[in-house]
Amino acid sequence: MILTVTLNTALDLTHHVPALVPHTSHRVTSVTERPGGKGLNVARVLAALGYETVVTGFAGGPTGEVLRGLLADLEASGGTAGPVPAGGLTDALVPVAGNTRRTLAIVDAATGDTTQLNEPGPQITPAEWDAFLVSYDELLGGARAVALCGSLPPGIHVGAYAELIRRARAASVPVLLDTSGEPLRRGIAARPDLIKPNLDELAQLTGSREPLTASAEARRRGAHTVIASLGADGILASTESGTWQACPPATLKGNPTGAGDSAVAALLAGLVDGVPWPERLARAVALSAATVAAPTAGDFDRGTYEALLPQVKVTEHPVHGVR
Amino acid sequence: MILTVTLNTALDLTHHVPALVPHTSHRVTSVTERPGGKGLNVARVLAALGYETVVTGFAGGPTGEVLRGLLADLEASGGTAGPVPAGGLTDALVPVAGNTRRTLAIVDAATGDTTQLNEPGPQITPAEWDAFLVSYDELLGGARAVALCGSLPPGIHVGAYAELIRRARAASVPVLLDTSGEPLRRGIAARPDLIKPNLDELAQLTGSREPLTASAEARRRGAHTVIASLGADGILASTESGTWQACPPATLKGNPTGAGDSAVAALLAGLVDGVPWPERLARAVALSAATVAAPTAGDFDRGTYEALLPQVKVTEHPVHGVR
Repeated sequence: MILTVTLNTALDLTHHVPALVPHTSHRVTSVTERPGGKGLNVARVLAALGYETVVTGFAGGPTGEVLRGLLADLEASGGTAGPVPAGGLTDALVPVAGNTRRTLAIVDAATGDTTQLNEPGPQITPAEWDAFLVSYDELLGGARAVALCGSLPPGIHVGAYAELIRRARAASVPVLLDTSGEPLRRGIAARPDLIKPNLDELAQLTGSREPLTASAEARRRGAHTVIASLGADGILASTESGTWQACPPATLKGNPTGAGDSAVAALLAGLVDGVPWPERLARAVALSAATVAAPTAGDFDRGTYEALLPQVKVTEHPVHGVR
Repeated sequence: MILTVTLNTALDLTHHVPALVPHTSHRVTSVTERPGGKGLNVARVLAALGYETVVTGFAGGPTGEVLRGLLADLEASGGTAGPVPAGGLTDALVPVAGNTRRTLAIVDAATGDTTQLNEPGPQITPAEWDAFLVSYDELLGGARAVALCGSLPPGIHVGAYAELIRRARAASVPVLLDTSGEPLRRGIAARPDLIKPNLDELAQLTGSREPLTASAEARRRGAHTVIASLGADGILASTESGTWQACPPATLKGNPTGAGDSAVAALLAGLVDGVPWPERLARAVALSAATVAAPTAGDFDRGTYEALLPQVKVTEHPVHGVR
């Protein structure tokens, strides 16, 4: 199975309003709730692609209960509402006393523009962190790959991802780190197999906005492979065996929410399938684009994915990353 | 006891952010949750003033559970965290299958300005409405006054308040109606003892923004007494025995959230205490002002209330309302 870790899970709420006007009152026309946090999004996509997936991290309080109820619905459906055979999604979240955070996306009906509000998350106690580590080590025993995703909740030390990476490496489980800021900086020093920053995150980490330079610097600091997401220009992969850029055939209109999580899912799937880098990258770009094109944020459109996959252009870069 | 009815209860969330900028992402710096909906706010103030209060209406789903948990905390504390003896607050909400709505207030830290998002509320089934009516009739048997507060959830017919007023009148329980729009228009035809519209609500009802004219028209349509709230200018009471205006001694700075609900609480308290109109109005104005001045939205500052009460200026208006 593939393990995804979401230490700061969330109940994602979406409020649709005619138009958001600050300092006025709004009638919400419709509300949706879904399990959230990057690792849960990655797991949902993996399960829909047919991969056995286990999610861990923390959940607690009334919002945690709602979150786990929604996950149970996904478990029952294999991560997809459609007729395509799907992998299982198993909830291995560790209970905590605090209340799982909410995130709120306020969507303007007229323009489709989104305003995002993210609660900070519950305070995690040292005993809860210890309980998580015991569970994590057990889960690593059955994992073919692990993804560490998103922000850290209050109470978790900033070097937490470095510790989780060391434990994964000790268990010989390949590890992908998808976070930002200080947790990313500390995490790459523990030598993760893969990081997937966007240009802002790379610039914050390395001081450079030039993708090749910044990726080389991130590799020098410890990341074995850097997959830099370039937005509409696709992704740039700096690996031990070469450097590739993969571009979508056209810029698709839609909602970019979840496109990065879909790319992570594709990279994990390609890793456990052992396919060559160019194919992994093509899958990541096609799945990202199919997520942007889907009507529901974070879902992907299977038809679009299959149509785009052979059209993604992957070019090897003449300048190889240097370690 | 005093009964308050809140058909569309809410879990009131407050998100504090540095500044709300549409179409960007925000880190929420702090989150608060409290039981909401006008009737629950009125009941909290009444309990803090020392009146036995029962709340009814609907609650359901995970947010309904959180709401009832917060109400249970209030029950245990008698509606106040302070050392002043307080009345009881009893939860007689009727369970429903749907999920109680949330309201979200987004507060800009810099300016204190608030942006409000109100979810529509759960669909109430005919069987749930029937169960409510059975419970409501029983509760009326022990009620000295009843307040019908706020909007109607989906599934409740627009004439619902008229029906509740007729049942209260049949049980000889004085009834205050605090709503707006079509539910107010339909409600006053059933001859409530008291309505408490603001100028916008009066104008929508009568077509006039002139308080005396609009109040007279609202009385002609069936309301025995009209207490028009004039914002910082206090309130205008058009009653069978005379017309009075009550003004606060000065305009207080603060958060007006809940000021109207505090006025309703004071009017109900004055009604069951049987005090003359000028004193009722003075209490309503002082309690509203003490709510504006309190640091937490919807709470009132007891010291401010007691200091303001003798300073409220109540003048009888030479033009009496005519029935």
